[in-house]
Amino acid sequence: MSLKIALIGCGMIGREHIERIQNRIRGAQVVAVCDVFEEGAKKGAEIAGTGTKVYTDFHEAINDPEVNAVVVTTPGAFHKEPVIAAIQAGKPVFSEKPLANTAADCKEIVDAEMAGGKHLVQVGFMRRYDRGYRQVKELLDSGKFGAPMVIKCTHRADGVAPDYTTAMAVTDTAIHEIDVLPWLVNDEWDEVQCIMPKTSCKAHEGLKDPQVMIMKTKGGIVNILEVNVNCGFGYDINCEVVCENGVVNLPCPSFPTVRYANNVSTKIEDNWILRFIDSYDVEIQDWVDHAVKGETGGSSAWDGYVASITADALVKSQTSGTFEKVVTGGTPDFYKK
Amino acid sequence: MSLKIALIGCGMIGREHIERIQNRIRGAQVVAVCDVFEEGAKKGAEIAGTGTKVYTDFHEAINDPEVNAVVVTTPGAFHKEPVIAAIQAGKPVFSEKPLANTAADCKEIVDAEMAGGKHLVQVGFMRRYDRGYRQVKELLDSGKFGAPMVIKCTHRADGVAPDYTTAMAVTDTAIHEIDVLPWLVNDEWDEVQCIMPKTSCKAHEGLKDPQVMIMKTKGGIVNILEVNVNCGFGYDINCEVVCENGVVNLPCPSFPTVRYANNVSTKIEDNWILRFIDSYDVEIQDWVDHAVKGETGGSSAWDGYVASITADALVKSQTSGTFEKVVTGGTPDFYKK
Amino acid sequence: MSLKIALIGCGMIGREHIERIQNRIRGAQVVAVCDVFEEGAKKGAEIAGTGTKVYTDFHEAINDPEVNAVVVTTPGAFHKEPVIAAIQAGKPVFSEKPLANTAADCKEIVDAEMAGGKHLVQVGFMRRYDRGYRQVKELLDSGKFGAPMVIKCTHRADGVAPDYTTAMAVTDTAIHEIDVLPWLVNDEWDEVQCIMPKTSCKAHEGLKDPQVMIMKTKGGIVNILEVNVNCGFGYDINCEVVCENGVVNLPCPSFPTVRYANNVSTKIEDNWILRFIDSYDVEIQDWVDHAVKGETGGSSAWDGYVASITADALVKSQTSGTFEKVVTGGTPDFYKK
Amino acid sequence: MSLKIALIGCGMIGREHIERIQNRIRGAQVVAVCDVFEEGAKKGAEIAGTGTKVYTDFHEAINDPEVNAVVVTTPGAFHKEPVIAAIQAGKPVFSEKPLANTAADCKEIVDAEMAGGKHLVQVGFMRRYDRGYRQVKELLDSGKFGAPMVIKCTHRADGVAPDYTTAMAVTDTAIHEIDVLPWLVNDEWDEVQCIMPKTSCKAHEGLKDPQVMIMKTKGGIVNILEVNVNCGFGYDINCEVVCENGVVNLPCPSFPTVRYANNVSTKIEDNWILRFIDSYDVEIQDWVDHAVKGETGGSSAWDGYVASITADALVKSQTSGTFEKVVTGGTPDFYKK
Repeated sequence: MSLKIALIGCGMIGREHIERIQNRIRGAQVVAVCDVFEEGAKKGAEIAGTGTKVYTDFHEAINDPEVNAVVVTTPGAFHKEPVIAAIQAGKPVFSEKPLANTAADCKEIVDAEMAGGKHLVQVGFMRRYDRGYRQVKELLDSGKFGAPMVIKCTHRADGVAPDYTTAMAVTDTAIHEIDVLPWLVNDEWDEVQCIMPKTSCKAHEGLKDPQVMIMKTKGGIVNILEVNVNCGFGYDINCEVVCENGVVNLPCPSFPTVRYANNVSTKIEDNWILRFIDSYDVEIQDWVDHAVKGETGGSSAWDGYVASITADALVKSQTSGTFEKVVTGGTPDFYKK
Repeated sequence: MSLKIALIGCGMIGREHIERIQNRIRGAQVVAVCDVFEEGAKKGAEIAGTGTKVYTDFHEAINDPEVNAVVVTTPGAFHKEPVIAAIQAGKPVFSEKPLANTAADCKEIVDAEMAGGKHLVQVGFMRRYDRGYRQVKELLDSGKFGAPMVIKCTHRADGVAPDYTTAMAVTDTAIHEIDVLPWLVNDEWDEVQCIMPKTSCKAHEGLKDPQVMIMKTKGGIVNILEVNVNCGFGYDINCEVVCENGVVNLPCPSFPTVRYANNVSTKIEDNWILRFIDSYDVEIQDWVDHAVKGETGGSSAWDGYVASITADALVKSQTSGTFEKVVTGGTPDFYKK
Repeated sequence: MSLKIALIGCGMIGREHIERIQNRIRGAQVVAVCDVFEEGAKKGAEIAGTGTKVYTDFHEAINDPEVNAVVVTTPGAFHKEPVIAAIQAGKPVFSEKPLANTAADCKEIVDAEMAGGKHLVQVGFMRRYDRGYRQVKELLDSGKFGAPMVIKCTHRADGVAPDYTTAMAVTDTAIHEIDVLPWLVNDEWDEVQCIMPKTSCKAHEGLKDPQVMIMKTKGGIVNILEVNVNCGFGYDINCEVVCENGVVNLPCPSFPTVRYANNVSTKIEDNWILRFIDSYDVEIQDWVDHAVKGETGGSSAWDGYVASITADALVKSQTSGTFEKVVTGGTPDFYKK
Repeated sequence: MSLKIALIGCGMIGREHIERIQNRIRGAQVVAVCDVFEEGAKKGAEIAGTGTKVYTDFHEAINDPEVNAVVVTTPGAFHKEPVIAAIQAGKPVFSEKPLANTAADCKEIVDAEMAGGKHLVQVGFMRRYDRGYRQVKELLDSGKFGAPMVIKCTHRADGVAPDYTTAMAVTDTAIHEIDVLPWLVNDEWDEVQCIMPKTSCKAHEGLKDPQVMIMKTKGGIVNILEVNVNCGFGYDINCEVVCENGVVNLPCPSFPTVRYANNVSTKIEDNWILRFIDSYDVEIQDWVDHAVKGETGGSSAWDGYVASITADALVKSQTSGTFEKVVTGGTPDFYKK
């Protein structure tokens, strides 16, 4: 069996996934594309190749009888409806991150999936598929290093668009660490605090950057996350896990070492697409491989909901400055592993 | 169009390629397997999946009308006949390295391919597909570093089987550098010298290990290659290119950095399969992508022949100790790029 | 002119300084040693060489007319009296860190020195003399990297004695970062918070370890310090300064890189003495060079007092868990640079 | 006892040693300086301080009754006579490298020292005092890595003066590796070969640069040395020792690691003075400490002679291109350790 995919939302990331699925993924094919702007949908179809159906109504695309799986790459505010439509159609659906822009919307998706009784939703947190994080997880799970106690991360980007807001440091940027770290150390967030250092002269008017986020897990691990989106020197993701017997660091991307102009140097990756391009391939392939078997892999709808709740607590702390609790109500049996 | 492959030779590397093509490669499928030992062929067919045809005669496999491409993974001494059979059948053929065990056999293949008038043969030197070598080549080709003058390589393996001979340090091991370095710096071998240091206590009786190979290109680049196949600490491939304005080093494989037991350390890869597993995937995919268009990529039959001539000169120098000339007679127009 | 030193307190660090001054320092000589235990004083004299005077009363030692400078290496609780005695004798005095065990005692020393009207006291915070910190300071002061915004430090030790307490993580360990960081970035502490992660299984009963200390400067720099004194893998000091245009990391101690047993590794230093042995030499030499000219270098009595106030705030936060203010009352003109 | 030194030759390196001895070395003092140019001698005396005697005749300086030790920092061609004069005066003498410019001159010094029957001569090969080389030697001598088999060195300099010749790549540059490597691995040179790669566009007219020197020891170790004195990116000394059980690399100089402009980088040292400034201090201190006890440390006159013989063989191979034997006639008992 092979996936016949309707892809909803033909913006930048949507078009990239079309290209990915048609050219680098086995066992899946984009057969229909949809965008509220017909022009956009047509561009997507052009990438997908001749014979691709073009829709402007996502309900029609999802319910096309040829379609047996859905990829949602609309803006976050417009994830909920197509994801729920896919659930109602009983078709596996891959939603780009975040699952939705509000915890309430995420909760609706979770409820819809539980009501349907089948695991159909996977959320596109691609870091769980990064080779480096997987290597770190394997080392941690080996037990050799003892229990994790402290984690230190940096999430640095070269620069951001003028409409990037202080809250987006959480909802767009830290959201990746919010998802990947509990997975990495098999734990759950308990409370979070956001501290504002001196703001960089590079941050545009009104933006607080960098930010330091202190995030405690229920098991007592303290994570310190530096979000720094105007660092000016590239896209620089680091993660150090301090355990009882040793410390494990996420590998940096692999580039030649160069001796030039009085320096020994190695390149820092330019941007997140290049940094995680391999992870996207692995992620989509894994989703396809699970979906053809009626399963899901990666982040679940519940994971997406928890990420949203955690982000809300961090955003609250951006003004309160104190620890804020992450209250999820507990994992439903449906989502327990 | 999609490749329907007959794979000839179901030993270890053959079975790996079957698994690779069936599970990780787009646009190709193993439809027939062949081994002189029926038992081996059946094992290969099992990996390839139901419906795979089983042959013990490679002529029959290659000439099966369903088959439109050939992969040769027999022992090196048995490459020539199936490769030439594929040429005569006008079907694209991927031969594992070396192209053949003797320069004379390689020459026969070259002559057969030229006689046929179509580029059909690709040789499995996978390093040209390694991401690190490609990054180095891109930096060198950028011109920023000026002309390469000296190259220093290590080819270290944890250990070798008891039947590994002094000559195999050239023909099995150095053969990879023999192929990849001229490609890396756009040059050709001119003369080579082999120097024998003190032999390691770990080398088995009769084996000279390590060996130092000095290899000059026509353009005057001096390459120093350390072959060291009983190093005892893993599979360790390094390559440093000294240019007029700077030095470029091949990246090491990417592993977490660990603080443990009074050391900051990073793993060295265990073996060549793991070190180059990504390259094999990229290589086979590239061959498939070229073959469906009636083209070849990677190393040509001529490259395979030149590698064989160069290896012969190095083996000669293992006893003479002096520089030996690499005489190829010049690249035929057919193979000029 | 040359320093004729009375060294007060012949314990481990005292004996080390005797050996250092007699053998590696120019322009100074230990001529008298003092310890309340005569046995200890005699051991010190043995290291100092024949002719060294032996005292058990520090007043006598300090006021010996041959003596023109004083080194105080008694336990911290017994620093105040000999330091003040030296001030009153008008002789330059080097006090090992901390200046005193309580802020009140430090304040008495500060007051005594201001009353005397001469700068006579230097406190033994040796990190200001570490080559690595000096290199980092030079880069920061160059302005190339813009303003510092975030600092991340680790202060890890292999293990600690059973009498090491939770408070000592501040007063004995973090005290070094408390002193060196404001000097490094030309700023002052404003408020500090101590967060307790899950405790290591290696920490003895009753000890909270590791600890995470969040320390803000008046200029808005946020420092995150991991104190981790049972890390089990050596003495591991790191410091990363995140600036507006780039990030600067303290160099690690220099050891050969080794390929062995499937790892590329570099040693982590065993303990603080070895890690900072060069700094001690530079520090004492710098003190001598200043003292012969009637000056002081390094950390002043005021710096020692501020460190004590800051440590008190951190200790308070170890139980409160919230930010605690660092209130010094402002630098007196006498200590302004 | 303390050394009262006459320093002969007040050029750049001479003046540096004067400053070093007066300011950083214990147990020694420059009391007399000598230069054939009175102006130069006076400049040296100015650095040495008031009361320093000024000579233009080295015999007078050496035989001044106040003088009890000699430092020779004349140009290499003028080492022999003052060194022999010091031997004849029975005074310990430190000669900058090389011991002399010809093997014949070196031999005369060796013969004079043996005739005198006392070890008086130390040659200024400072690398034996570099902390990194000492760490490597300690690891090798520990036996953990087994026997050394291959060594790979780079000796790279940013650029050279227009009068630097092809032969000086051996006599001025490689001379350091010629001395330090046999000491490092407890072996002796047997035969050497010089190979000329393509010449750098940065090398001035007539200069062959880079050069690759292949140097075998009597024990069968093969050393590959890249001399590259127009590398353009700093002063870059590397040394990798490949042993039976592992590989040991000389540490690079310690500088902060910096993230800036899309690179993670560490500085390469600017020049040899900065790279080895610590070694010079340790070397001169060690000479002083030995000399006051009537002993010598570091490189002996015999070592200086052997270095000269080896350099001659390498220079010969610069034109012959083949292996040339290093014939010393065997270490006299007088110099055996």
